[in-house]
Amino acid sequence: MPIEVELKVQVEPNLEYLKDRLKHLYFEHQGDFREIDFYLDSADYSFASQDKALRVRLSYDLNQENPQKKIDLVFKGPKIDQRSKTREEIGIQIYGENPDDLIKLFHRLGYTEIFQINKNRSHWKNTSGINITVDLIDELDPLCYLEVEKVITDAQSKDKMVNELIEILSDLLQIKKEDLMSERRSYLELVLKKEQNIISGQ
Amino acid sequence: MPIEVELKVQVEPNLEYLKDRLKHLYFEHQGDFREIDFYLDSADYSFASQDKALRVRLSYDLNQENPQKKIDLVFKGPKIDQRSKTREEIGIQIYGENPDDLIKLFHRLGYTEIFQINKNRSHWKNTSGINITVDLIDELDPLCYLEVEKVITDAQSKDKMVNELIEILSDLLQIKKEDLMSERRSYLELVLKKEQNIISGQ
Repeated sequence: MPIEVELKVQVEPNLEYLKDRLKHLYFEHQGDFREIDFYLDSADYSFASQDKALRVRLSYDLNQENPQKKIDLVFKGPKIDQRSKTREEIGIQIYGENPDDLIKLFHRLGYTEIFQINKNRSHWKNTSGINITVDLIDELDPLCYLEVEKVITDAQSKDKMVNELIEILSDLLQIKKEDLMSERRSYLELVLKKEQNIISGQ
Repeated sequence: MPIEVELKVQVEPNLEYLKDRLKHLYFEHQGDFREIDFYLDSADYSFASQDKALRVRLSYDLNQENPQKKIDLVFKGPKIDQRSKTREEIGIQIYGENPDDLIKLFHRLGYTEIFQINKNRSHWKNTSGINITVDLIDELDPLCYLEVEKVITDAQSKDKMVNELIEILSDLLQIKKEDLMSERRSYLELVLKKEQNIISGQ
């Protein structure tokens, strides 16, 4: 079972500083992408309460003139760790550049599109296969988040990997480990929270 | 809404004769394929009773030495015509050559693999975009079926298209139109029926 060990922290949107730090720690830039995420939920809207997610993503390279669009479908299981966003993740890549048919198929199966999240993502990777993304979310403007993740297949090594990712974050952001504020909520949850606050006038 | 207008008839497994007739009517051979179909159903097994189907297909070209395998996902809605197998059909092609992750994702969404159907399919097409397949189904051995179909986007032209396909079948098989026995059951239904007959000793 592939497990995505993942930590997220909110950071200052100082992209030049983050870029320098990433390079300093031997992370290589993989590209800058536009990602448009369509979140689906079952007929009884049970995914959110069960901490599951079903997402269709349309993405393309922001640095190419006529970039090819990519479509993928991802299922995320409930979180299985107290400190991080670690969870089972099953991802499928779809042929073609248009997500409409895939979303329509899920409509026919009874799923509903509940939310769309749009972001710019800068992707970095090191030789150990650890990925770091710097994300600017349209719907959370101007908040900036940094995610560090690695996919493992051995559930036993989860805690060790969480510790390793905490070390990397601490080093990268020059913050003591105990001062790191792990954000365990998904972008979807953060956006929903923000909308609720607006509605309730907070 | 793309609609698959489709007719199926059981035929004698005389492949040489069928090949000659198809060529005579200007159908061109598109290839011979192995198709392995995994049928999924919802947690309450409601698809069969609602005349819906969700299918993952793995297919490859039988005439190539190291053929690339193709994976697709198809949803079929209930039949909407009395004479034919006409129904809504939404198809998605998946990257890669292994259906395991896609099937696992649907398991996580609560779907169950209910049946697998294996067949050899010879595919023919004419210049009007009408497809004919000659199918030999492992599980229905030695029965041979011929399917003729065209995808239309204008629901209004359904009846006209059904008539056109009946003409073609009549011409191809040299059988009077009124003597054509349209098989409206899917391969899945035919195999399930056969299994039930074996169990009940018929």
